[in-house]
Amino acid sequence: MKRIAVLTSGGDAPGMNAAIRAVVRKAISEGMEVYGINRGYAGMVDGDIFPLGSKEVGDKISRGGTFLYSARYPEFAQLEGQLAGIEQLKKHGIEGVVVIGGDGSYHGAMRLTEHGFPAVGIPGTIDNDIAGTDYTIGFDTAVNTAVEAIDKLRDTSSSHGRTFVVEVMGRNAGDIALWAGIASGADQIIVPEEEFDIEKVASTIQYDFEHKGKNHHIIVLAEGVMSGEAFAQKLKEAGDKSDLRVTNLGHILRGGSPTARDRVIASWMGSHAVELLKDGKGGLAVGIHNEELVESPILGTAEEGALFSLTEEGKIIVNNPHKARLDFAALNRSLSQ
Amino acid sequence: MKRIAVLTSGGDAPGMNAAIRAVVRKAISEGMEVYGINRGYAGMVDGDIFPLGSKEVGDKISRGGTFLYSARYPEFAQLEGQLAGIEQLKKHGIEGVVVIGGDGSYHGAMRLTEHGFPAVGIPGTIDNDIAGTDYTIGFDTAVNTAVEAIDKLRDTSSSHGRTFVVEVMGRNAGDIALWAGIASGADQIIVPEEEFDIEKVASTIQYDFEHKGKNHHIIVLAEGVMSGEAFAQKLKEAGDKSDLRVTNLGHILRGGSPTARDRVIASWMGSHAVELLKDGKGGLAVGIHNEELVESPILGTAEEGALFSLTEEGKIIVNNPHKARLDFAALNRSLSQ
Amino acid sequence: MKRIAVLTSGGDAPGMNAAIRAVVRKAISEGMEVYGINRGYAGMVDGDIFPLGSKEVGDKISRGGTFLYSARYPEFAQLEGQLAGIEQLKKHGIEGVVVIGGDGSYHGAMRLTEHGFPAVGIPGTIDNDIAGTDYTIGFDTAVNTAVEAIDKLRDTSSSHGRTFVVEVMGRNAGDIALWAGIASGADQIIVPEEEFDIEKVASTIQYDFEHKGKNHHIIVLAEGVMSGEAFAQKLKEAGDKSDLRVTNLGHILRGGSPTARDRVIASWMGSHAVELLKDGKGGLAVGIHNEELVESPILGTAEEGALFSLTEEGKIIVNNPHKARLDFAALNRSLSQ
Amino acid sequence: MKRIAVLTSGGDAPGMNAAIRAVVRKAISEGMEVYGINRGYAGMVDGDIFPLGSKEVGDKISRGGTFLYSARYPEFAQLEGQLAGIEQLKKHGIEGVVVIGGDGSYHGAMRLTEHGFPAVGIPGTIDNDIAGTDYTIGFDTAVNTAVEAIDKLRDTSSSHGRTFVVEVMGRNAGDIALWAGIASGADQIIVPEEEFDIEKVASTIQYDFEHKGKNHHIIVLAEGVMSGEAFAQKLKEAGDKSDLRVTNLGHILRGGSPTARDRVIASWMGSHAVELLKDGKGGLAVGIHNEELVESPILGTAEEGALFSLTEEGKIIVNNPHKARLDFAALNRSLSQ
Repeated sequence: MKRIAVLTSGGDAPGMNAAIRAVVRKAISEGMEVYGINRGYAGMVDGDIFPLGSKEVGDKISRGGTFLYSARYPEFAQLEGQLAGIEQLKKHGIEGVVVIGGDGSYHGAMRLTEHGFPAVGIPGTIDNDIAGTDYTIGFDTAVNTAVEAIDKLRDTSSSHGRTFVVEVMGRNAGDIALWAGIASGADQIIVPEEEFDIEKVASTIQYDFEHKGKNHHIIVLAEGVMSGEAFAQKLKEAGDKSDLRVTNLGHILRGGSPTARDRVIASWMGSHAVELLKDGKGGLAVGIHNEELVESPILGTAEEGALFSLTEEGKIIVNNPHKARLDFAALNRSLSQ
Repeated sequence: MKRIAVLTSGGDAPGMNAAIRAVVRKAISEGMEVYGINRGYAGMVDGDIFPLGSKEVGDKISRGGTFLYSARYPEFAQLEGQLAGIEQLKKHGIEGVVVIGGDGSYHGAMRLTEHGFPAVGIPGTIDNDIAGTDYTIGFDTAVNTAVEAIDKLRDTSSSHGRTFVVEVMGRNAGDIALWAGIASGADQIIVPEEEFDIEKVASTIQYDFEHKGKNHHIIVLAEGVMSGEAFAQKLKEAGDKSDLRVTNLGHILRGGSPTARDRVIASWMGSHAVELLKDGKGGLAVGIHNEELVESPILGTAEEGALFSLTEEGKIIVNNPHKARLDFAALNRSLSQ
Repeated sequence: MKRIAVLTSGGDAPGMNAAIRAVVRKAISEGMEVYGINRGYAGMVDGDIFPLGSKEVGDKISRGGTFLYSARYPEFAQLEGQLAGIEQLKKHGIEGVVVIGGDGSYHGAMRLTEHGFPAVGIPGTIDNDIAGTDYTIGFDTAVNTAVEAIDKLRDTSSSHGRTFVVEVMGRNAGDIALWAGIASGADQIIVPEEEFDIEKVASTIQYDFEHKGKNHHIIVLAEGVMSGEAFAQKLKEAGDKSDLRVTNLGHILRGGSPTARDRVIASWMGSHAVELLKDGKGGLAVGIHNEELVESPILGTAEEGALFSLTEEGKIIVNNPHKARLDFAALNRSLSQ
Repeated sequence: MKRIAVLTSGGDAPGMNAAIRAVVRKAISEGMEVYGINRGYAGMVDGDIFPLGSKEVGDKISRGGTFLYSARYPEFAQLEGQLAGIEQLKKHGIEGVVVIGGDGSYHGAMRLTEHGFPAVGIPGTIDNDIAGTDYTIGFDTAVNTAVEAIDKLRDTSSSHGRTFVVEVMGRNAGDIALWAGIASGADQIIVPEEEFDIEKVASTIQYDFEHKGKNHHIIVLAEGVMSGEAFAQKLKEAGDKSDLRVTNLGHILRGGSPTARDRVIASWMGSHAVELLKDGKGGLAVGIHNEELVESPILGTAEEGALFSLTEEGKIIVNNPHKARLDFAALNRSLSQ
């Protein structure tokens, strides 16, 4: 393979730039040329494609976001979109592609591979909810950003004797809430993977106040459960009498200079994706498992270790989907005593 | 004066602990004893009062919030509350008080002074909206916290081509919005002190997109104007077609380790408050003007330079109220070209 | 076991407070009482021992350093010191001990266990150089602190076209240098585990300048190799002609609010140490391997998985000592192209 | 004036990019064109000059360093160098210049003005040691960076009972040491503007230990006094018996994302420099005095308010040189009681 391309797709995440840099530098060190594609699959179809040299990525490792921009582009799920993209790859002499993004982005990588353009996926999302990897690029940064914000809220909640409901991102996965909750010493953590009893939440606030002289309380809530506002209303309905405030950390979690860990993981994965392409391999997603690099077929049978399988009706099944560490929920309960 | 007390009142602000530390250390260096009062005037009335030594404030300068806790206590506006507080001051042998808080807190300081217990106010609030001082303790930290958050939002807004409405604190004063807006390179800043035309806001977004190829846009909004959600709705009604998101930085701005400037100003003001009490002076509020310490009578005539006057009907008039720098609004308009 | 104690020993590390908090809270939730011991084994011998409640650790999770203080106390290697310590444990009714520190501290834990006082070790050191665990408490924070500092140096090195030699801690292990080097995009990383050729280092600087138009260069150096000053001198002797500066990040790396990861790992390990003591187990060190909790005998045979063995002459052998990831050194070489 | 240029000169400082951005954006809003000059006067002479548009500075406000690079270029003090520079300005149709840098850079601005190319200086240096302004761009960031580092050292100094000598930049001016010292609660601050007695320094450490039970101590030292190592040696010779460590914060202080205040001041000054050029004014330096913009003639008589005068022998005299706030030294002494 002489020339490869790299793109970012789906929600942006801190560390995507570090991954792009690694792809570019590693490919050059292997004697390949690299092109960047702006705005994910949308830019591929539009031909928004340009050469990337070692220098262009020289100061990108510390930057949040993605300098290749990102976009969702559902049209790439259709054959027509894929063929339009391939047309552009051919035109630019590109033989393989690295796709950095969520598992929605992996689908496109699979299709490109089937059409003869090997593509490799790298998991980039703050939510940590992608099959085939213990960690996704951006998760560590998002957790640290959440913890810094909750540390600040703790200053004011403790000064004033307040209860704070802190909503963090995580539509399907409670990972951010669990890690940020433990790390910030949250009193309660509410995640989509676990039932909760709003009356128990309310009575815990009151019990802590009455029996432990604790007049402030922090609840970390994953957005996948419900909004912070809705949760606060339920809490009030359940009899909570504390001075209750809601904060939604929202999009702040997506930005910022990536942590060391996200930069290292991104560099490591980016480098490995190039090695796979160099060997002509595609249709694979890179991951970290047990602190080592792994790769999994994106589509195939569960026995092959594929991330996704197709039913006879063409429906997508996630084999062995990501699971949040619910032992951390138990850990936090014992530490908020 | 042999023994003084210190309390924090109203909304907490980063740097309050630095001010408390300065009061304690300076008083000790002047041969006085210091007592802390928890939860502001409420704690004074409850007798939640205890001796504070040099060591107890030894590691407090870098901490957000206030380790003396804060509370609003409207009952102290009534004579009954004041007398109950004075009872406690007498009981503990306290002869003077330093009050750190907003201008609501100054009223109590004035009353204590009138009852023979000289009290000095120090401006502590992130909003920077207190008469008699160019800067309040906590403002610099709040602005920096806002800027760090907006820098993060810029990563994701620029990666995805979005418009962000960022709501920051500031009920009456646009200072946080103006400083944070300029420092974060906001495209538009909306403050309570200045009219705005929502159609102009919307058309600027579109103009920048069409004529400058700028696909992301950041609007910093002071909460005193309206909520971020309400503003976004108006923007949509005014025809905005961009991918619009709202983030409310909310209570995060109140917390966090204070900046160097807030710590220095707090130390300086705290030290000066003690000097005033030492000279038997009360009914004064400390401030910074033109980078020098100043003090103003809290109550009196405008000619005396008092912060507040009373009309014959007993209504409070603010003489020479704080004004935000509207030249900064003009500055930002010229820089967002 | 009814009552346990916790101490920190050896060099301090960010996250030690989070571990202490976890030990206290978990023990209380298990119905045990907890005592704190100040200044490690020195304080144990001195009887500097006091009860710790849930509230006392309430705001400690975010704090750097160790609020129990730390000290090196070689006298505890002698039987006399151990007996003096045990005397104090008996006096306070303490039946088991959690020791947070480096592997030097583990020795004492082993001796206490042998004397009938089960003690469990938790790896706390920024160097990440302890056998029996993939990660030590403090390592992640130290790496992030180093990366933030190197990001700052990059600003000035790039503005002025300079070469910076950045010395980081790591007497035996290059882990901090390797992780911080990759994450900061260092041009070269020099660690004790790997030979280096100073002429090659110098010629790489020159090659990058002449052939890649790169006029700034960052070299991350682990202190275990030699000092930054000594390295710079050798570099000059080897013919380097660049504008060369040396910065030693030094003790800054030991401090600061711990990262989310260090807080989570510390909480997890602290909780597990209590579970082991609760089961009457001692002479063990807690660790993280493949993202799961593990425990290893501190002393024993290699076959038992013990961290250390004694030769017949009484010399200590480290079974399966910690190894830095040298594949990261190769990774960085390919990315600094 | 139709076309102006901007350059950075001397040591880099955080906020220089914000100033460049302001110059570019303001000039465009006034209908002028802007060119960037790389590497200060050296790049001017080499013709390293290129057009700068609004977009090129779009994401620069948050970046440390200077994207126009900086260099010292003593040759510009000579007529020959100046004429070579002017040749290039003419070639590019440039009629006025904004020079961001230390007072060494102002000299060149004066000469350009005398040759018919109005040039305006903006004070950019972390040292805060420039006449004609209360604050220089970069100072606030450097102080905050120092404070964050000292906060970290405090964690470890307090955990271990150590004395730290922390060397900070400041060859002639103690401003960084004074502000960072107060803000970090340093026990002693040593600056070039004030005599110190090494025996007093040593005895204070011992007194605090013996009489206040204070076992850790932080001394902030400006580099202009002597190096940290030299100071520590003198301290030992003067009888200090504490566990003494030295840390030189060095070049870290020059880098990093600028604080809100540095960004605001830089934006404000940059904008004003363009207004002056627009009015055809040159040979002036912009400053902040009493929180308002001011400008001073660079060269002239003291009566005219000029920053510098020439003696008959052609020697440069600084009129009314910058003075550090020595009242802050006294303030800190009273607070370290």
